Amino acid sequence: MKYRIASIPGDGIGPEIVREARKVLAKVGEVYGHTFEYEDLLMGGCSIDVYGESLTDETLEKAKGCDSVLLGAVGGNVGQSNWYQIEPSKRPEAGLLKIRKGLELYANIRPAILFDELSGACPLKEELTEGGFDFVVMRELTGGLYFGERKTIEENGVKKAIDTLTYDENEIRRIAKWGFDVAMKRNKKVCSVDKANVLDSSRLWRSVVAEVAKDYPEVELTNMLVDNCAMQLVRDPKQFDVILTENMFGDILSDEASMVTGSIGMLSSASLGATKLGLYEPSHGSAPDIAGQDIANPIATILSAAMMLRYSFDLEKEADAIEDAVKKVLAEGYRTVDIMDEGKTRVGTTKMGDLIAERI
Amino acid sequence: MKYRIASIPGDGIGPEIVREARKVLAKVGEVYGHTFEYEDLLMGGCSIDVYGESLTDETLEKAKGCDSVLLGAVGGNVGQSNWYQIEPSKRPEAGLLKIRKGLELYANIRPAILFDELSGACPLKEELTEGGFDFVVMRELTGGLYFGERKTIEENGVKKAIDTLTYDENEIRRIAKWGFDVAMKRNKKVCSVDKANVLDSSRLWRSVVAEVAKDYPEVELTNMLVDNCAMQLVRDPKQFDVILTENMFGDILSDEASMVTGSIGMLSSASLGATKLGLYEPSHGSAPDIAGQDIANPIATILSAAMMLRYSFDLEKEADAIEDAVKKVLAEGYRTVDIMDEGKTRVGTTKMGDLIAERI
Ligand SMILES: CC(C)[C@H](C(=O)O)[C@@H](O)C(=O)O
Ligand SMILES: CC(C)[C@H](C(=O)O)[C@@H](O)C(=O)O
Repeated sequence: MKYRIASIPGDGIGPEIVREARKVLAKVGEVYGHTFEYEDLLMGGCSIDVYGESLTDETLEKAKGCDSVLLGAVGGNVGQSNWYQIEPSKRPEAGLLKIRKGLELYANIRPAILFDELSGACPLKEELTEGGFDFVVMRELTGGLYFGERKTIEENGVKKAIDTLTYDENEIRRIAKWGFDVAMKRNKKVCSVDKANVLDSSRLWRSVVAEVAKDYPEVELTNMLVDNCAMQLVRDPKQFDVILTENMFGDILSDEASMVTGSIGMLSSASLGATKLGLYEPSHGSAPDIAGQDIANPIATILSAAMMLRYSFDLEKEADAIEDAVKKVLAEGYRTVDIMDEGKTRVGTTKMGDLIAERI
Repeated sequence: MKYRIASIPGDGIGPEIVREARKVLAKVGEVYGHTFEYEDLLMGGCSIDVYGESLTDETLEKAKGCDSVLLGAVGGNVGQSNWYQIEPSKRPEAGLLKIRKGLELYANIRPAILFDELSGACPLKEELTEGGFDFVVMRELTGGLYFGERKTIEENGVKKAIDTLTYDENEIRRIAKWGFDVAMKRNKKVCSVDKANVLDSSRLWRSVVAEVAKDYPEVELTNMLVDNCAMQLVRDPKQFDVILTENMFGDILSDEASMVTGSIGMLSSASLGATKLGLYEPSHGSAPDIAGQDIANPIATILSAAMMLRYSFDLEKEADAIEDAVKKVLAEGYRTVDIMDEGKTRVGTTKMGDLIAERI
């Protein structure tokens, strides 16, 4: 089969890590007889440099014409880069929001996994993580504070800023369904996170999730307040299977969760919607400080490519092959600097990509 | 001197822990020659049982007439209690929001301290916390999503909920000043946390904070995105001195920070405003499951009483005396069950209060 992938390396370490993911995909193509074709697109600071904005309508249209999107990372150093001297709607991050919205990618899945091989890097004490943990944060991605109306006005000489958090039933229902569907393939537990003791949107969220739950009698649903969830992730991450939450809470909690694993350079993410077209990117950022030094960890991007094979192309076997290759390389003791440990073999970005590709 | 304190025990373990704090204050009065008088007030579920709402206007007026407020905790088990079958604006938590707003308590200070004696309870690995940490989260408490307009409407048969996040310059400026003032008495570092890559309110926040910073040339100001801060609290809590942030982010981050210390039963909080009248309460909740069993840890409330002496009554020496007494009792090996450890002496709520009072 032939698949057309929008390749958006972005800024900072983006180009290096996407290059390695494409290397691994090429090997998968060779071994399993698929062709992966790429449409190279600009998004983020590199697009600002050329077009004056992070994502042009034309680029978005091109992405829509592909079967999926593989993204590196966008953005630079806020304090130093010219990319942040322009109006907010054109800055690097605005492109990311525009592509999420434009492709209707309302479901963001971020796995938080404590890899056996890397448990040393976990910031939590061993007694809290014994036996490991493996949960996903399922974040609503095209609603809430991110996409509500906002404005800054002046009233009697006093500046005032307003952002709006809105959700309707349908937006909540469709992400909730995803959450329960994912839970059915895992340990059948959904923890829905909100701030229902304060927000109307959270009260609506909670009631719609409860309705959806009726169609999934096998799944255990619990509700947790967002402040409590921020505590529980540190206190006892093993309790979770699927955390289901709205956009801003999901932003905060998924980052906290990924740090709790200690291996943020390993964590992939998928943004999905109504169609098979998904966007796949590492959970980490563009890390401009280490760009171009061949030291970035490409594994999160490579595992994102595996998610792409699984969710957008239904290539289960091929996705497994990538994941197994990553495990093998780790078991053999190879490490990039971010996950380096005593007695292991340190390798760079390119070499890590080579090793994984070789083991497919 | 004579001080009039509104005493609001609230629900769950509230009455027990406030009782112990009052016991300690009585001893302070005896030793240092002060009189603490109490106005006993109902707030939370216990007020719903009597008046049908969490905080009546009359009770709020009575609190306004006092020199400060000592609060236990409010609320019950959401799933089980009748207190949550009434309209949101009358539920237990609504009382808490009403008193914060009614007394104009816009500055919430929550210390996050790794107590030497209790470092074993910290969920983080020792190498991350060596030497301990001690920072405060300074949270704006009367603005943002908590107090913006909200409504749930139906459009073409589809329910839609809207919450509004607003901040004006003045609201930001006054909390920012508090943050810098507190930093001046500490390690002179303010980390302002926002989501300026998405929210207008955050961009206004960041620019006003930068303005205020000019009046404090000795204080080092950094800006951090909220998702990154949620990570940094787990990765390296020692980096912080004063975290300055808006209401909802502060809710989430301060709870995460208190869990990172591992000793949430020890953490006090103060809510302050334009006048000397402050509200002092433990950072933890009402823990209905363990209410009435004489096992709750009263130390957070006792330390909140110490903050009251310091911030509302300017009784520095007396505040120190309470804090020293707590340290002494811990050093002697006494522990409530939540902080119990091998070789220590387990005591109940009442006994812990007795021990601390004796050492004043
Ligand atoms: C870059 C930023 C706008 C984005 C977000 O907040 O969604 C990022 O933090 C993420 O989580 O993908
Ligand atoms: C009970 C709730 C409304 C409150 C809040 O969100 O402010 C609590 O979580 C707190 O932090 O004091």
